[in-house]
Amino acid sequence: MTTGFTHETLGQRVVFAPAGAAGAVAAEVGRRDARRVMLIAAPAERRLAEQVAGDVPVVAVHDDVRMHVPVEHAQRARAAATEARADLVLSVGGGSTTGLAKAVALTTGLPIVAVPTTYAGSEATPVWGLTSGHEKQTGVDPRVLPASIVYDAALTTSLPVDLSVASGLNAMAHCVDAMWAPHADPLDIALATEGARALATGLPEVVADPGGLDGRQDTLFGAYLAAVAFASAGSGLHHKLCHVLGGRYDLPHAQTHAVVLPHVLALNAPHAPDADRRLAAAFGSDTALGGLEALRTTLDAPRALRDLGMRESDLPGAVAAILPVVPPSNPTPVTEDTMTGLLRRAWEGAPPR
Amino acid sequence: MTTGFTHETLGQRVVFAPAGAAGAVAAEVGRRDARRVMLIAAPAERRLAEQVAGDVPVVAVHDDVRMHVPVEHAQRARAAATEARADLVLSVGGGSTTGLAKAVALTTGLPIVAVPTTYAGSEATPVWGLTSGHEKQTGVDPRVLPASIVYDAALTTSLPVDLSVASGLNAMAHCVDAMWAPHADPLDIALATEGARALATGLPEVVADPGGLDGRQDTLFGAYLAAVAFASAGSGLHHKLCHVLGGRYDLPHAQTHAVVLPHVLALNAPHAPDADRRLAAAFGSDTALGGLEALRTTLDAPRALRDLGMRESDLPGAVAAILPVVPPSNPTPVTEDTMTGLLRRAWEGAPPR
Repeated sequence: MTTGFTHETLGQRVVFAPAGAAGAVAAEVGRRDARRVMLIAAPAERRLAEQVAGDVPVVAVHDDVRMHVPVEHAQRARAAATEARADLVLSVGGGSTTGLAKAVALTTGLPIVAVPTTYAGSEATPVWGLTSGHEKQTGVDPRVLPASIVYDAALTTSLPVDLSVASGLNAMAHCVDAMWAPHADPLDIALATEGARALATGLPEVVADPGGLDGRQDTLFGAYLAAVAFASAGSGLHHKLCHVLGGRYDLPHAQTHAVVLPHVLALNAPHAPDADRRLAAAFGSDTALGGLEALRTTLDAPRALRDLGMRESDLPGAVAAILPVVPPSNPTPVTEDTMTGLLRRAWEGAPPR
Repeated sequence: MTTGFTHETLGQRVVFAPAGAAGAVAAEVGRRDARRVMLIAAPAERRLAEQVAGDVPVVAVHDDVRMHVPVEHAQRARAAATEARADLVLSVGGGSTTGLAKAVALTTGLPIVAVPTTYAGSEATPVWGLTSGHEKQTGVDPRVLPASIVYDAALTTSLPVDLSVASGLNAMAHCVDAMWAPHADPLDIALATEGARALATGLPEVVADPGGLDGRQDTLFGAYLAAVAFASAGSGLHHKLCHVLGGRYDLPHAQTHAVVLPHVLALNAPHAPDADRRLAAAFGSDTALGGLEALRTTLDAPRALRDLGMRESDLPGAVAAILPVVPPSNPTPVTEDTMTGLLRRAWEGAPPR
């Protein structure tokens, strides 16, 4: 390789503490000499969060968490942080909870210790998002990157299996798409390869033993790597496609990724031999597609967009909306014909090719 | 896996700019709004360095670079930086040059842009070292981690092939030893795997075409990953062993690593199946040891400690000095007998087993 590239590594402490979140959180808060912690957690996770925060000096608990971080919710959380004279934000929860903590950090500069309870991956990126009505604003700011992440597999054992599978395959989509995304560099590809390996190992264990820690930790590790790679590499064809489908037809996010991914892989693998080899090795299979399909079968993953609420009559409009946003970096050229075939197969649940 | 671990990622901009160092350096200096650059480069590389720095505002050039950074040299460089009112240090050179820039950053807090011309890897770590007489002091400080690295393969094409091979195998030793070093975590292992892959690809190309950029850039990329993994994972058996040999018998650093590495791999691989699989895949071979041996043959690497100046009568003393520093984390238990056999084979240049 003699192509130039720039990769920015981001400074962050990443702690894996299976069944040890409270101690690890106390250590991370202590390292920063924080004495006034604002705890953010959704009501459903508040009890869990208070256990996790049991050994740190909490001065405020904020549980007004909403999906997509509406700007007025962000403002209330920021005001609460200021009023409490907080010196650190501790978030315990999924992507929306981490997102609210990031909104606070964006204007206050407070450091975040993030304790994820899903495989969303937001804790490993400097990307923030806010919504105002139907408008979504996103940005990148180093201040919103959590200073420390504490991954405790025991906090994720209550995530239902079907949601774990969809969320894990969403993370897998980050890894696969990072292979050919517009800003993909050799470091992203290395991390994505390892993420795919960890997810392919962990997810079948989660299905076989949802309460066990082994598969859960592998999946968290894979989701972390997926997020780091994706944040650096940007959106490839798969994410552009899912973004259009999700936005136009209000399809469920993670499930849409799980359905579409093998179809994009089937399209791109013949023109991306290095990605094919890497993913095949990660899946322990002869080909990337064969490995992903075997994994989807093991996981009983969703297979058809029509099962998620998309109508057949939506297909032409979807194709028309997707074609203009296909990344020029995509290894296989995309035509109206190939996209129509791809989407129809994804809609029907037909085998990818 | 359900073992806990903590990995600290370090924030750094890593730019690969084949045949484009001057432009990339100007961009990195510009990003930091630096207007008074102190250039550090050894006399042999001064002309090259001035070309690399051609587009940045240099206010001082310092070429008093010595191996192991003697403390009085560090003090002179610091005084020169202060006198010149430098706001950034640009280093162009090998490990000693980067080391002097780090010594300046350690007390002044000035940011470093590092342009490496060897495969030493110091530019990717927060480790500094100073010597006072025969005493070496080392430490870890985030201030000495270069803010940006600019890797330009064209700057390394004049590195002689034998030195490139020894230095590249030294980087390979970082990757292999990171598999079982005391603080090795899954992220270190992932980066080390990829580093081994890049070095195994790049080094044969360097030997075949020393002036070409492809092999040089792969080797730089591998050396970068090796350094990141090694700085996090710490010294495993291989590095402990080479440290003792180098210190007691004044053997050449990189060559000693090249000779000893396959013997340590042969010892540990049977008890480190994951490392064996990963390295075998990185080498495109059935076993890690087979792959490393094939690579050493291709590279015509040094094979025997006796060729480097060690005497047969040194062997018992070496064994006695090594046994107390064997890391408890080493996958294969080490006895006086196994270490004696290992060192004798390395001394003779016998096949590792």
